[in-house]
Amino acid sequence: MTGLHEDRYFDPDPVVRQHARVLYDQSRALPIISPHGHVDPAILASNDAFQDPASLMITPDHYILRMLYSRGVPLESLGVAPIDGKPPHAERDPRKIWQTFADHWQLFRATPTRAWLEYELREVFGIQRELDSASAPLVYDAIVERLQSPEFRPRALFKRFNIEVLATTDAASDTLEHHKTLRNVELGGRVIPTLRPDALFRIAAPGWSAEVARLEHAGGGTIGSCAELVRALARRRADFKAMGATATDHAIVIPRTERLKDSEAERLFTKAGQRAATEDDQARFEAHLLMEMARLSVDDGLVMQLHAGSLRDHNELVHRRFGADRGGDIPVATEFTRNLRPLLNAYGNDTRFQLIVFTLDESTYSRELAPLASHYPAMLLGAPWWFHDSIEGLTRFRRQTTETAGIGNTAGFTDDTRAFCSIPARHDLARRVDANYLGGLVARHVIDMAEASEMAKALAYDLARRAYRLT
Amino acid sequence: MTGLHEDRYFDPDPVVRQHARVLYDQSRALPIISPHGHVDPAILASNDAFQDPASLMITPDHYILRMLYSRGVPLESLGVAPIDGKPPHAERDPRKIWQTFADHWQLFRATPTRAWLEYELREVFGIQRELDSASAPLVYDAIVERLQSPEFRPRALFKRFNIEVLATTDAASDTLEHHKTLRNVELGGRVIPTLRPDALFRIAAPGWSAEVARLEHAGGGTIGSCAELVRALARRRADFKAMGATATDHAIVIPRTERLKDSEAERLFTKAGQRAATEDDQARFEAHLLMEMARLSVDDGLVMQLHAGSLRDHNELVHRRFGADRGGDIPVATEFTRNLRPLLNAYGNDTRFQLIVFTLDESTYSRELAPLASHYPAMLLGAPWWFHDSIEGLTRFRRQTTETAGIGNTAGFTDDTRAFCSIPARHDLARRVDANYLGGLVARHVIDMAEASEMAKALAYDLARRAYRLT
Amino acid sequence: MTGLHEDRYFDPDPVVRQHARVLYDQSRALPIISPHGHVDPAILASNDAFQDPASLMITPDHYILRMLYSRGVPLESLGVAPIDGKPPHAERDPRKIWQTFADHWQLFRATPTRAWLEYELREVFGIQRELDSASAPLVYDAIVERLQSPEFRPRALFKRFNIEVLATTDAASDTLEHHKTLRNVELGGRVIPTLRPDALFRIAAPGWSAEVARLEHAGGGTIGSCAELVRALARRRADFKAMGATATDHAIVIPRTERLKDSEAERLFTKAGQRAATEDDQARFEAHLLMEMARLSVDDGLVMQLHAGSLRDHNELVHRRFGADRGGDIPVATEFTRNLRPLLNAYGNDTRFQLIVFTLDESTYSRELAPLASHYPAMLLGAPWWFHDSIEGLTRFRRQTTETAGIGNTAGFTDDTRAFCSIPARHDLARRVDANYLGGLVARHVIDMAEASEMAKALAYDLARRAYRLT
Repeated sequence: MTGLHEDRYFDPDPVVRQHARVLYDQSRALPIISPHGHVDPAILASNDAFQDPASLMITPDHYILRMLYSRGVPLESLGVAPIDGKPPHAERDPRKIWQTFADHWQLFRATPTRAWLEYELREVFGIQRELDSASAPLVYDAIVERLQSPEFRPRALFKRFNIEVLATTDAASDTLEHHKTLRNVELGGRVIPTLRPDALFRIAAPGWSAEVARLEHAGGGTIGSCAELVRALARRRADFKAMGATATDHAIVIPRTERLKDSEAERLFTKAGQRAATEDDQARFEAHLLMEMARLSVDDGLVMQLHAGSLRDHNELVHRRFGADRGGDIPVATEFTRNLRPLLNAYGNDTRFQLIVFTLDESTYSRELAPLASHYPAMLLGAPWWFHDSIEGLTRFRRQTTETAGIGNTAGFTDDTRAFCSIPARHDLARRVDANYLGGLVARHVIDMAEASEMAKALAYDLARRAYRLT
Repeated sequence: MTGLHEDRYFDPDPVVRQHARVLYDQSRALPIISPHGHVDPAILASNDAFQDPASLMITPDHYILRMLYSRGVPLESLGVAPIDGKPPHAERDPRKIWQTFADHWQLFRATPTRAWLEYELREVFGIQRELDSASAPLVYDAIVERLQSPEFRPRALFKRFNIEVLATTDAASDTLEHHKTLRNVELGGRVIPTLRPDALFRIAAPGWSAEVARLEHAGGGTIGSCAELVRALARRRADFKAMGATATDHAIVIPRTERLKDSEAERLFTKAGQRAATEDDQARFEAHLLMEMARLSVDDGLVMQLHAGSLRDHNELVHRRFGADRGGDIPVATEFTRNLRPLLNAYGNDTRFQLIVFTLDESTYSRELAPLASHYPAMLLGAPWWFHDSIEGLTRFRRQTTETAGIGNTAGFTDDTRAFCSIPARHDLARRVDANYLGGLVARHVIDMAEASEMAKALAYDLARRAYRLT
Repeated sequence: MTGLHEDRYFDPDPVVRQHARVLYDQSRALPIISPHGHVDPAILASNDAFQDPASLMITPDHYILRMLYSRGVPLESLGVAPIDGKPPHAERDPRKIWQTFADHWQLFRATPTRAWLEYELREVFGIQRELDSASAPLVYDAIVERLQSPEFRPRALFKRFNIEVLATTDAASDTLEHHKTLRNVELGGRVIPTLRPDALFRIAAPGWSAEVARLEHAGGGTIGSCAELVRALARRRADFKAMGATATDHAIVIPRTERLKDSEAERLFTKAGQRAATEDDQARFEAHLLMEMARLSVDDGLVMQLHAGSLRDHNELVHRRFGADRGGDIPVATEFTRNLRPLLNAYGNDTRFQLIVFTLDESTYSRELAPLASHYPAMLLGAPWWFHDSIEGLTRFRRQTTETAGIGNTAGFTDDTRAFCSIPARHDLARRVDANYLGGLVARHVIDMAEASEMAKALAYDLARRAYRLT
């Protein structure tokens, strides 16, 4: 497997490559800080063996689903169950799913999915055979064999992956039972929750009232007003913090921020209760709640993450039939300078507050985000997100942000993954790409090796720990 | 001529260069698929000798016109005839035009125009002498001599260029007489038309009614309603298909798509007939007609090309005096995620439909287009267009789209040229740049050489054939 | 100091590096043309010794202020005086300011500020010792010693820097007294003013009437109407021209251009006098005044610079307490194609007019600005501005503009600095980066060395002289 050459992702120039090797050797074995991701904590709480290669690596991976779907492969054949109950039904044989995937493996050439999966196959599962249509059954069997052994149980992998902190992403109404379980388990590292209350802000969505009810049930108390909603969220923030959380996370299409008058916020809340809130009402309510979340952050110290600019469920047919997170989310151009101004003016000069901003619009790196993060004490740049968590994407991020913001205004790497076994693959790729970036700077005499060594360690470890207050 | 070094456009790194050479050697001799361009089919139908170097290479080339005009050279001196009839009149002596061009040849350093023209001069015309003010007359004479020989007649060049398919771009009312002629000519390849009905969608333009009349005359039948217009277009699609067409082409400033109610579409049509349609009416009518074109594509299988984001005739003085396509078109920021959503939701999941999208806004590559194309089965990314059909531009396209969309969701190379003799030059440059891109991936151990070989062939040949249904 | 390696900023590839060295050797010693910047002419008019390292290099440098402030360093501790008079007061001990700066020196790794300051320390002040917390006092003392010697007086440095032309930026009401003084001083080069009348266009700003009064006082005559304002500006343009000015400069957020009816312009002027003008009124007034400035440029030949897209004083707290230019300006996405159309249609075909456009939105390089500049005779692309005046930024500019516009439609390098001692540092960095860019083109056989030599000289010297009409 070519992709696992020991010098992979390094520039071929001998000087850069030599520097990159040295720097990567210094960062490769550092513990993994994974401060933002979507691993299900139940995996670790139960410690059940993973079922099979398809349900582990194919069916839940929206990168794989989108690529195969784009080339005409039905989602059903990849084991994705229609939620509308209509035929055709989802393929249930994991061998067939795996074969379908292997038959299309070449689509992933030069993509990060290919790099991650090759790492998983070889480094995590010890498979030497190259994947293709012919080898698919053999590779399948080999993985199945591994999955049945105790060394491949989730907790054993957690230790082997050398994870120091793994943060999950959890709804505001989550009971955190798995996290409670995990607090009493020796993992060699922490698993902590992250509060993501988005659903409670979406007052124009059909499920909003149900979400509010869930929050009430989860200990938020009666919620009959916006003020009570905010109080309930404050209580849940405290609950999450008690379970180890250091951060909240907020996903929005347009990162608008605006403090509404109390009366106006209450009017919108009431309208939502009557299922009468419009999209514009929701945008204003979200803008207001982001201000409230920032205000609470100043007090409780929870880091505020903002993931802006993904238009969810662009493909209505796929969304109706298969639900969310099936590869149908598409980025939009995103404006930060004007949108974040109210929030940054209110809280951005306060060092008790920490805001980490993620974008899918790379044109904002050098134009808006690096300038903002290199001025406001409270703001940091989040790692390249999603489509941009790749060799070229990570490189563009460094090249377009470092000269303005330095590395000191960035928040380290976040793998953002649902796929537990991809965690070491993603961190390895990022550490390689950063080592290569730094090696290039040394080769061009922009920094020296002593500086590059410190920076390589910071990018792999220190910055994420500091940014997410994990010390 | 430096630009024709055998390793031109390859990275100087010896490893990358070596890989690039090998890959280019595998793709350089593949037949040319030219599925989108603006060559006048009359050239091949008549097979008349080209007149002179100026009218062949200078006067019709909007890349050259814009560069020289931008440095103060009057368009008249380049042989561009004022359509307003006012003096000064256009230079008629092709030698003088050629000399003026040669005197400004250095302006093109490091531009693709320079690369293409050097290729034409040396590879097509066999001129060894470097072009400059002093050599201009000699070079002129040498080209003239070639043009008079049978080997430089259009059809001979067509064979020599090894063109397998050449698609032209034709108005909906075109009689396709030249294509009819060409069907009976042995060229060693096909010349096929492409239906471009834009003018019929522009209901606010002064010439709209005349366009409709032309369509009626061309066999569209009476067109007294929007429904009849769509029926006429369906008929013309069938006519074009019968002449070998596999695609339509649509140019718009903003790629808005929206199905109007029938009554609303008819209201706009009627308003247009009264010359009362506004710009906003036109935008909505275009959005509706794009939906109609996609609907027809599902049925007749014609591939739908969308060229979005060029604000035509930005320079009103140049447009009034010299007409369209004189180098005065300027790109605008373009939004695809929201604009294409209605069309993609209606037809994008249908594999009978094929949509190829081109942009002049490179910020959309990684943000919108690669994510869309890597999800919707019907959508592909068109090649880098116009200003971006260049060494750096082609490289940016690969680097910004491949990691998300793979190469499998792209549509191969399109030369998009009016200049017949530039066809091999443009394909050669693209094949070199792609070989170099792939060579870089091999050198960084992202893919191996066997994969790169397949990909080089796909980028040069297979993908265009498949995308445009030319098999 | 690594950053001053003799091959710094050159690609490590031996071929590129060798070409870059040769090209840089040809441009490094050319005189400096600095056609746009913010050096205070009083420095040279008085020729007083610079006070101390902190007030020379730290307190006035908004790049340094923003970076340190972003990491929690109070502006007061860097010597920035609060204008609100409230405590804490500004640090007055320049040694302490210098120490604070040195303690945070590592934040600037891989930024242009680091590159510039290292150059200043070593090349301008001859300091060999690396800067860090421990060496800070020694370095401070060494600089102080230099500053006391005659060779480090401003005029001596001006000669040593080999400055041929230094343009300052001056309010329309400026008396130009320092420029008058300097006309009688032998500097080995010229110091010329640039008219920047922005404050007079901002009719919604509280200080507008005072600005108008200052202009009246400065010889503009009574200004009771928009027409009189324009006449006053025409008079001041003549005054500036008489003092050697060759250009005006205009900063706006959105580069809207539009000729208003006279009556409408007068209505807005009257409204402004009543302090009733809105933001929208101002935007329209600015759009109109830009048209007027262009019209006057056609007559008097002053080059018109446009700096668009910086949202000033984004951080209201910092602005209220410390005033403008403290690092709180943030770029916004900027539209040029539609916004500049009226101005370019009115004057862009006239070669008597010269417009130089600067952007902070790099996505406009290839999409809008290079296409516009490569068509309109009057328009040139300004150098990479502010955040983009860096190794990567300058490289992106060349890569994204040259293929469309050539280098002939660019305006050379502008250092845009307030920091007098950084002038040679910035030009040196730009000359190195351009030499490296050209060396890469030679190595890839896009141009030959003879061409690259001419281009290196043009980029370092010729283009700026021509663009700013300094011949």
